[in-house]
Amino acid sequence: MRNEPRSGCAINAAIEVLGDRWSCIVLRDIIFGGRRHFRELLANSEEGIASNILSNRLKSLVAAGLLTQEPAPRGQRSTYSLTDAGIETVPIMAALGSWGLRHRETSYRLRVRAELLEQGGPPVWARLMDELRETHLGIPLPDPDAPRATEQLAAAYREAVAESTPT
Amino acid sequence: MRNEPRSGCAINAAIEVLGDRWSCIVLRDIIFGGRRHFRELLANSEEGIASNILSNRLKSLVAAGLLTQEPAPRGQRSTYSLTDAGIETVPIMAALGSWGLRHRETSYRLRVRAELLEQGGPPVWARLMDELRETHLGIPLPDPDAPRATEQLAAAYREAVAESTPT
Repeated sequence: MRNEPRSGCAINAAIEVLGDRWSCIVLRDIIFGGRRHFRELLANSEEGIASNILSNRLKSLVAAGLLTQEPAPRGQRSTYSLTDAGIETVPIMAALGSWGLRHRETSYRLRVRAELLEQGGPPVWARLMDELRETHLGIPLPDPDAPRATEQLAAAYREAVAESTPT
Repeated sequence: MRNEPRSGCAINAAIEVLGDRWSCIVLRDIIFGGRRHFRELLANSEEGIASNILSNRLKSLVAAGLLTQEPAPRGQRSTYSLTDAGIETVPIMAALGSWGLRHRETSYRLRVRAELLEQGGPPVWARLMDELRETHLGIPLPDPDAPRATEQLAAAYREAVAESTPT
């Protein structure tokens, strides 16, 4: 990663961190899949990320301030947490998903979450980000009694998995 | 570019097309800079895109259906046009810009457009997309008397250039 950005453009600034084939995929799996450990990010990857690429992307996301890596006690797995900058990629994920839904072939099972994000719009993204702040940063939810966006997304995904025939 | 997507995920589908260091930069310059020709995309690049990379990215954006290239008469420059899929990257640009504004250092001159996109929100993105459909696809504006988003963005940029000291 270069230290000097290519320009002072805000769009470019985001692309310098997220503009590669894997960084957003790793963040997506942490945000929507709740995966916090190297092994589960590797084993459950829908796109079949390679071990060395995952390792490299996790390091660069930590260096760029989107993730932190908690030091693990001897013999234990270390845990990755989203920072606020990592959590605030949710609207980017939603925009990418809406574009993909509209302009590419997608599979029903893997499409439902993008559809929910699109239908829910900014209020659902904000709730999801609040829940991620609770889980990853220990910041209490502003409204603990509101329905959980993470649960709605997980339930929709489980339903789609149950309905879709194995491929 | 691979023909088979890595997965059926809508977010991944967008990343397969846009997830590299330059594709969104080229689209940004066509969308916000109004640049339609190879030479102006090359000469005015804030990030100093190399000629071979620009050529390669334009080809892959045409292959992916985000741009079309009009055949040029002998000795004339050929013109690139956005397709609807290219135009509908505007919300992705806005989301990337908002993230960059919040989490990275940006320069005043190159920040103003991302700020306007953020302040205006989805209604301004929709107007901008309608104007791009008129310019690139010949589709008449639904409301020709509404203030033009492209003009507002261009005016804000000119103002910022005038105010900022040269670097």
